[in-house]
Amino acid sequence: MNAIVLSIGDELLIGQTLNTNAAWMGSELNKNGVELIEVLTISDTAKSILEALKYAESKAKLVLITGGLGPTKDDITKKVFADYFNAPLIENKEALKNVEGFFKRYNRDMLPVNKLQALVPTGCEMLLNKAGTAPGMWMESNNVVFVSMPGVPSEMKYLMEHEVLPKIKKKFKLPVIVHQTMMTQGIGESYIADKISDIENALPQYIKLAYLPSPGIVKLRLTGRGENEASLLKEIDFIFSKIENRISKHVFSKIESKLEEVLGGVFRDKKLTVSTAESLTCGALASRITTVPGSSEYFSGSIVAYSNDVKINQLNVSKDTIERNGAVSEEVVTQMALTAKSLFGTDYAVATSGIAGPGGGTDEKPVGTVWIAIAGPRGVFTEKFQMGKGRDRVVEKTIFSALSRLLQLVN
Amino acid sequence: MNAIVLSIGDELLIGQTLNTNAAWMGSELNKNGVELIEVLTISDTAKSILEALKYAESKAKLVLITGGLGPTKDDITKKVFADYFNAPLIENKEALKNVEGFFKRYNRDMLPVNKLQALVPTGCEMLLNKAGTAPGMWMESNNVVFVSMPGVPSEMKYLMEHEVLPKIKKKFKLPVIVHQTMMTQGIGESYIADKISDIENALPQYIKLAYLPSPGIVKLRLTGRGENEASLLKEIDFIFSKIENRISKHVFSKIESKLEEVLGGVFRDKKLTVSTAESLTCGALASRITTVPGSSEYFSGSIVAYSNDVKINQLNVSKDTIERNGAVSEEVVTQMALTAKSLFGTDYAVATSGIAGPGGGTDEKPVGTVWIAIAGPRGVFTEKFQMGKGRDRVVEKTIFSALSRLLQLVN
Repeated sequence: MNAIVLSIGDELLIGQTLNTNAAWMGSELNKNGVELIEVLTISDTAKSILEALKYAESKAKLVLITGGLGPTKDDITKKVFADYFNAPLIENKEALKNVEGFFKRYNRDMLPVNKLQALVPTGCEMLLNKAGTAPGMWMESNNVVFVSMPGVPSEMKYLMEHEVLPKIKKKFKLPVIVHQTMMTQGIGESYIADKISDIENALPQYIKLAYLPSPGIVKLRLTGRGENEASLLKEIDFIFSKIENRISKHVFSKIESKLEEVLGGVFRDKKLTVSTAESLTCGALASRITTVPGSSEYFSGSIVAYSNDVKINQLNVSKDTIERNGAVSEEVVTQMALTAKSLFGTDYAVATSGIAGPGGGTDEKPVGTVWIAIAGPRGVFTEKFQMGKGRDRVVEKTIFSALSRLLQLVN
Repeated sequence: MNAIVLSIGDELLIGQTLNTNAAWMGSELNKNGVELIEVLTISDTAKSILEALKYAESKAKLVLITGGLGPTKDDITKKVFADYFNAPLIENKEALKNVEGFFKRYNRDMLPVNKLQALVPTGCEMLLNKAGTAPGMWMESNNVVFVSMPGVPSEMKYLMEHEVLPKIKKKFKLPVIVHQTMMTQGIGESYIADKISDIENALPQYIKLAYLPSPGIVKLRLTGRGENEASLLKEIDFIFSKIENRISKHVFSKIESKLEEVLGGVFRDKKLTVSTAESLTCGALASRITTVPGSSEYFSGSIVAYSNDVKINQLNVSKDTIERNGAVSEEVVTQMALTAKSLFGTDYAVATSGIAGPGGGTDEKPVGTVWIAIAGPRGVFTEKFQMGKGRDRVVEKTIFSALSRLLQLVN
């Protein structure tokens, strides 16, 4: 059972919008045992939509289409969809009621163009979109299922969860797909491959190993396909633990998880607390820690000290220390961490200071210079980093390093 | 002159990695007048790569390929690429020197598998990758240019900027593409379309209008294609200003820009300063404001008060106020904003408090309830919002609403 996603929209092709829809759909299909074989992103023209429908029909049993269902002129998917199947548009009463309810709920006047949202091609099944005004459309033709959905992420997700996925599970007999992912740090992918080459060479055909590197982390993913979930899980588990034994000191999580989630688990288990004092990361570190639900159990707060005045007035850094060593220095981050620890009364406090760029670098302290300090029960840990260029990248790498050092300290 | 991007990698199809490469490449191609007609994302198998190369060759003059060039077994793009062109792999001296230098620089031992990185197909031009070890490959065949690059974003970007784009500009005569984007708030796309329908209907064939809605914002983009840049710019400018006149009070920027950038411009121009006191957004608001280079001119700092203790101790909210009204209340955010304004000595201070979920909601204050306060020279502005569900979405919408209210207050 395989699927193709067609993402329609010029904004995706010119890079104005990131195709998060396709990634989300891929992940959901995968969990449900549907193999997504391709994502095809195309322009908002009738010609490219028609060609793509034909192409997808020749390759897959399920074609999921997003985009181009809005009320404005540039949205032409529904018309082209109807043409492709030779199925004239007719008004759907339930869809119209939904559109009218939507405008009533938000106390807005309905325009004639909004009423057109309730048209659907004859012969298709209308999928009621309670998150918006454009209905989804489920059309079967030549043994292929075509589903057209709006491109607005919340509306697409509503339709996938409440209509499309349940219908797919009902209609198709789905195979079992099992994934297991481990998260490693402090080792490059070629070194891992070298340490486990015999295990990798001995993998059966239906189990695949993938290396997924990102800054500071390499994920290893085993994927198995088959019919018997229990035996597949057992086999993958066994290979997984063999790999883990070879590189155990680099594995920081045995499930697909983010560093902040792993850290949250440790802090919760050990009943520890943490706070931050941030200059370079400017709240992004606190914000990352608190993306984890329940983080209020171990995270109390942060002082974001972007200006030196705030470092002096709120974080007890002396003016003299800044003048002698600069704001990006071991002395300053140490004081920031110590003050945060005592102000917030936490077991640990993490402080960051650095030069994100593009301006502000010097010969001695070029853009990308970062100091991190972690005050804890056994004293203050400090480290200097060179994070390279690119404002966002410097901040991202600093958050990663701060969390990963903190994890090492508490573990 | 048109192009196709082939993104290779199972991690993209199962949604483990977002395809940011394709968006970035689309934006760069577009700026340079190359029309990206499709992005095709496929699996790491020889069959799908071969089929995709054939498909792309039949549709475009330029095929940009990313992914599958790493040193590990799951990376097969180079081998398949060589097979497709019947071009055996041979060692490239310059590429080998680059790989060796890379390992020397980081003081790491080179493995035999790393040496294989220096192989390239005969007949292709090797593109030196100074950001990593896998070289890029430029191959011309049947009047189509194929370029293969690593999937690691920093390496792909290095190669695009230093090798691929300069070579494209030299080889092809590129047409002119002009975009102009305006940013609107407080009006839905169908209302805009209604107000400007006569302008839209009168657009010439070579100028396209697109509506791009996202939470709180609708972007309007005019795209013109032609040969004479000056006359195209003039024509688009004229249409642009006609549209702007119809909806002027909703336009907050006449260039493609983020709300925080627009806000930064106003704060800099008016020499105003701002700080934040954050519970719900937990540093994400400060972090968003400071993604703008030069934001240290107008942003001083933040108190992130995730726990009530921090609200009481650092932000002067009385225990009694919290007990009587709850932490998510007008009284609490008002006090948070007032204290931040005076602690940081800024002209404005923005405070947020809310229930992000999934837990913590009640009948009276369900998940998604958010209070925002902005203390300024003329007193405190407060507003209550219902942001719906989804932890990230609630935070994102709160950041947007806080910045957009702040912009209204200072403008």
